[in-house]
Amino acid sequence: MTRGSVREATPRSLLVLGGCRSGKSDYAEAWLAGRFQRKLYIATLAVGDDEEMATRLARHQQRRDATWTTVEAPLDLVATLRDHQLRADAILVDCLTMWLTNCLLADLSDDAIEAEVEALAATVAGLACPVVLVANEVGLGLVPDNPLGRRFRDLAGRANQRLAAGCEQVVFVAAGLPLTLKP
Amino acid sequence: MTRGSVREATPRSLLVLGGCRSGKSDYAEAWLAGRFQRKLYIATLAVGDDEEMATRLARHQQRRDATWTTVEAPLDLVATLRDHQLRADAILVDCLTMWLTNCLLADLSDDAIEAEVEALAATVAGLACPVVLVANEVGLGLVPDNPLGRRFRDLAGRANQRLAAGCEQVVFVAAGLPLTLKP
Amino acid sequence: MTRGSVREATPRSLLVLGGCRSGKSDYAEAWLAGRFQRKLYIATLAVGDDEEMATRLARHQQRRDATWTTVEAPLDLVATLRDHQLRADAILVDCLTMWLTNCLLADLSDDAIEAEVEALAATVAGLACPVVLVANEVGLGLVPDNPLGRRFRDLAGRANQRLAAGCEQVVFVAAGLPLTLKP
Repeated sequence: MTRGSVREATPRSLLVLGGCRSGKSDYAEAWLAGRFQRKLYIATLAVGDDEEMATRLARHQQRRDATWTTVEAPLDLVATLRDHQLRADAILVDCLTMWLTNCLLADLSDDAIEAEVEALAATVAGLACPVVLVANEVGLGLVPDNPLGRRFRDLAGRANQRLAAGCEQVVFVAAGLPLTLKP
Repeated sequence: MTRGSVREATPRSLLVLGGCRSGKSDYAEAWLAGRFQRKLYIATLAVGDDEEMATRLARHQQRRDATWTTVEAPLDLVATLRDHQLRADAILVDCLTMWLTNCLLADLSDDAIEAEVEALAATVAGLACPVVLVANEVGLGLVPDNPLGRRFRDLAGRANQRLAAGCEQVVFVAAGLPLTLKP
Repeated sequence: MTRGSVREATPRSLLVLGGCRSGKSDYAEAWLAGRFQRKLYIATLAVGDDEEMATRLARHQQRRDATWTTVEAPLDLVATLRDHQLRADAILVDCLTMWLTNCLLADLSDDAIEAEVEALAATVAGLACPVVLVANEVGLGLVPDNPLGRRFRDLAGRANQRLAAGCEQVVFVAAGLPLTLKP
């Protein structure tokens, strides 16, 4: 494994994994900012009436300058990627784990969610512009004491595996620093 | 640290660490499948009447072909390893964390469990065939709010340290991809 | 990324990240023991009447020989570092996450805690002797179901990022084995 080596070509797809407050979004944004001009930010966070969520979102938005356009896609992630692939130099999806949460809250079955993940992986593989996917690693604590928590953890872990297999590069970010999982 | 480099010799023991749904079992199975013919799978999962557990186990079993033999060892892991070491080309133990859970549920004291872990490490070191141990990393969330959770987390972390010290190779798997902890 | 390579000079600051029972404290102690004679151990654990905590602390203390001096700093970490920087060859702070917990329990606001973290980073950068900081990674499980847990997780993650940016070297320890995040 190597880190920070100069690459000949920018990959078509990058998966950025990490924990909560690991700096994974900052890493993804800086990675894109250094490479592309017109950047699309796809926010999967469904804010609604949640003040805590709104504060989080505002904090994220303050970081991004005018070279970023933001669209929200709490559920229709695949369609949003397809619709915008010709309108930006690169796309950031932040984050997959929130999108999975939204799918779960929308009462999709496990099979339906796994089909969505497959469609996402296929879309990412054929996208007209480079894409960076941000996702949480959520499986490194104790077994959750409720079935929904266990179900979510399984879905999130399998989605991460599927998209890691499909993306050209994968990094794991801790304390703002990347470890290369797939160079 | 390096990854994916060609090795001169297959190690006698490999510890595969990772979170829930990290792909650690798939990684371990593929690692063995590419190297050995007659493989023994030691399942530590005590299924009992638990439907959720039975579904998980069935999912795992479907992946393995006729070159695998399965035995169950919810508690007697050390004896099972000794009994079968001459009957297989290699052994997979999946997983240590479930075995520790079973020890805890069987009311073993911390000292008794640590003695079991020592016996396991000694057995692994002297086994007639190569062995791969799969274990969960469970200490990367918040402090559990109950004493049993904290006790389990301590036991699991110490067991992982002990076996990592004893195994020839150690990898950490995230999203199906390995990071080499001990080359 | 490389591990275990011989370094020309000992870094002025090292951040050791890891989960509960990952071996991060042992790693930090061994790292210092191999390099320095008079070592100061700054314990951030506020024992009080907590028997579980006292047992943990005693286990840690038994490991350290007479070349270690221990001081307790549940809250006044920055002042303690400044006061002792000329009295030791090197300092170990174990651990930052407990210190953050103490700040939270002392009813400091998020802004006050972030100012403390900034002051700590500045102090570490200008310290007269080398320092090793031990911190827990706590953001790799599911979202906590209570606001305090989420707040703590956010604070801990941001503190780790800030100190990782400021320290010369950063390692992530799992099962007693280090991965280099910042060489």
